[in-house]
Amino acid sequence: MSDRNNGELKSHRRFMDRALELASRGAGFVSPNPMVGAVVVKDNKIIGEGYHEEYGENHAEVNALEDAGSEARGAVLYVTLEPCSHYGKTPPCTKSIQESGIERVVIANRDPNPGVAGEGCSVLREAGIELIEGVLSERAKKLNEIFFSFIKKKRPFIVQKAAQTLDGYLAASSGDSKWITGKEARSYGHKLRHRLDSVLVGGKTVIEDDPRLSVRDYKGRKSQPVKIIAAGSTIIPTRASLFSAEGEEVLIFAESKAADRMKDEFASKNDISVFATEVEEGKLNLREIVEVLYQRDISSVLIEGGGRINHSFLQDNLIDKYYFFIAPKILGGSDGTSVYSGSAPPIIESAADLEITDQIQIGNDMMIEAYPQESTQP
Amino acid sequence: MSDRNNGELKSHRRFMDRALELASRGAGFVSPNPMVGAVVVKDNKIIGEGYHEEYGENHAEVNALEDAGSEARGAVLYVTLEPCSHYGKTPPCTKSIQESGIERVVIANRDPNPGVAGEGCSVLREAGIELIEGVLSERAKKLNEIFFSFIKKKRPFIVQKAAQTLDGYLAASSGDSKWITGKEARSYGHKLRHRLDSVLVGGKTVIEDDPRLSVRDYKGRKSQPVKIIAAGSTIIPTRASLFSAEGEEVLIFAESKAADRMKDEFASKNDISVFATEVEEGKLNLREIVEVLYQRDISSVLIEGGGRINHSFLQDNLIDKYYFFIAPKILGGSDGTSVYSGSAPPIIESAADLEITDQIQIGNDMMIEAYPQESTQP
Repeated sequence: MSDRNNGELKSHRRFMDRALELASRGAGFVSPNPMVGAVVVKDNKIIGEGYHEEYGENHAEVNALEDAGSEARGAVLYVTLEPCSHYGKTPPCTKSIQESGIERVVIANRDPNPGVAGEGCSVLREAGIELIEGVLSERAKKLNEIFFSFIKKKRPFIVQKAAQTLDGYLAASSGDSKWITGKEARSYGHKLRHRLDSVLVGGKTVIEDDPRLSVRDYKGRKSQPVKIIAAGSTIIPTRASLFSAEGEEVLIFAESKAADRMKDEFASKNDISVFATEVEEGKLNLREIVEVLYQRDISSVLIEGGGRINHSFLQDNLIDKYYFFIAPKILGGSDGTSVYSGSAPPIIESAADLEITDQIQIGNDMMIEAYPQESTQP
Repeated sequence: MSDRNNGELKSHRRFMDRALELASRGAGFVSPNPMVGAVVVKDNKIIGEGYHEEYGENHAEVNALEDAGSEARGAVLYVTLEPCSHYGKTPPCTKSIQESGIERVVIANRDPNPGVAGEGCSVLREAGIELIEGVLSERAKKLNEIFFSFIKKKRPFIVQKAAQTLDGYLAASSGDSKWITGKEARSYGHKLRHRLDSVLVGGKTVIEDDPRLSVRDYKGRKSQPVKIIAAGSTIIPTRASLFSAEGEEVLIFAESKAADRMKDEFASKNDISVFATEVEEGKLNLREIVEVLYQRDISSVLIEGGGRINHSFLQDNLIDKYYFFIAPKILGGSDGTSVYSGSAPPIIESAADLEITDQIQIGNDMMIEAYPQESTQP
């Protein structure tokens, strides 16, 4: 590579890096849209910045172009995803780009939506705008892993979170789990809830822990994550804390008898939906649940245990990402609630291999981010 | 602090640091003696170095003084532990120091042995040699944590090692545990065995895994760690692999009936000792075992599971240090062998709190070094 090209690539990366940083500010506000950021650059200086701030509002490109104003003429636009060329909630970005007089567009990735992918690129090229693709492509895919996975797999991106002791327990034999991890780790858990569309727990967890499942620490969020209960045959009491906030959506999945009863009990509540769900070998059909979520444009789910729910999702090969919060504690026996409660493969070779992608200290606890190996990473 | 004193402290630390580095080379060869290193310094330059290389051989001070030769006159001696002033396997070091013409001695810590502590210091001071104490004291104590703990607690320093899945299992339901962690972690396990005087397993582990329990990767070791089997009522077969190497000491602890039978079976083997041990609530009295080890000058034990043995030692509050090797694997169910097999406290507040002191990546696995909180650290 020539020095000139090398220098150019470096500055492409620098500006795309800034665009990705801007994009990430949309976390928790734009779903099921992707997070997108954009910068306008002229004479190697940023003259406009923008990002997709909220679902239904302006796309990143338009915000950056507006920020640059008439200076955009002859400039370069860096954008983390291929600009759209269709009328959706807002007019096509390709149109705004053409009108602005931008001469060159640099993108990280094409839009993965089939039928849309590559179209924005074509429109721009036909309009005589130079196009460069693939700058910081992997990082941009990782930032929008939910969006890419949702489109590819046609189901929500499923994240499992566990707060456990070093010896692998979610709770002691009495059911007590307060508190295994410290307040810093719990606050990080709220951050995860904030970033995802929904939170799922089992009926047993609702009865035993009576969680609220809301995002407490993050202000400014438009709406709370959808609360999902995989109730099985458990009847969820109407006084459960997660029903206490008005206007927060709750989806309950239960076998038909329990579902019928709860449909009656929750009939007057608009925000609560009950779904009769198939039961197979004593457990709810998770594929059926996941399909309902997909149909409702819920692009991500945070599984917050207990052990039986974790076990079911693992068995059905539905976990796309893991967060383990491991406390420096030993429960010290085998009668607590395991992270995965149920039967395991009889030999170690059949254990699930993970790829650990991050490992940090949070307060006194350890946080491990991991993916299944040979994985679902987009 | 004046600049001069500050500079002096810095150079004290630098030379003590070197002495500690030398000391650590004795790991695995000097037990139950402490590891000790020494350097002789003149005009701010090291003119002699030495360490205690092997049990029964020269002390560190003598080796360093011999290395310095007649240059030692008027020099400073840095030594990681108070020099001895008594005749043991070798003559008193205080005598060699006086004879060498050393003018000043800098030590990290006093000898913790009651009746000896401070005596070496007094002898030197009375001989008109300047003495400075407490340089890198904590680091020196940590290096010899086994030695300090052995003297203070009058029992071996007990280290528990576990190779486990992320969800806390030592083995799958079939008993299979090969291999949870990778070869790098297993090799590190051998390094631990090398450093400790003995390795302890339960009878069940001997039957199921048939381990050799020897140090394979470390050449040059004088003798293998003593192999200890907490057999309970299990009869250990004479063909077990850990008896296969001649001249390696094995101690078997069992309830009286099993002990009687094994005493007969192993009567012809000089290296194998069988001890009838009290049984309380279905498990061996560990305090009794630990007392036998103390009497035999075994200053450290590496507990290598299984789950019941780990559980018993934890319950009896006998674990001084932990090594968890955690593989990026999920067993995925609750029917494997837990790191601690048995009953646990019913509430999280009663879980054992650990202080994690090191956390490193070894191959694909994670190694966590930890101590009980409010701890046994000397």
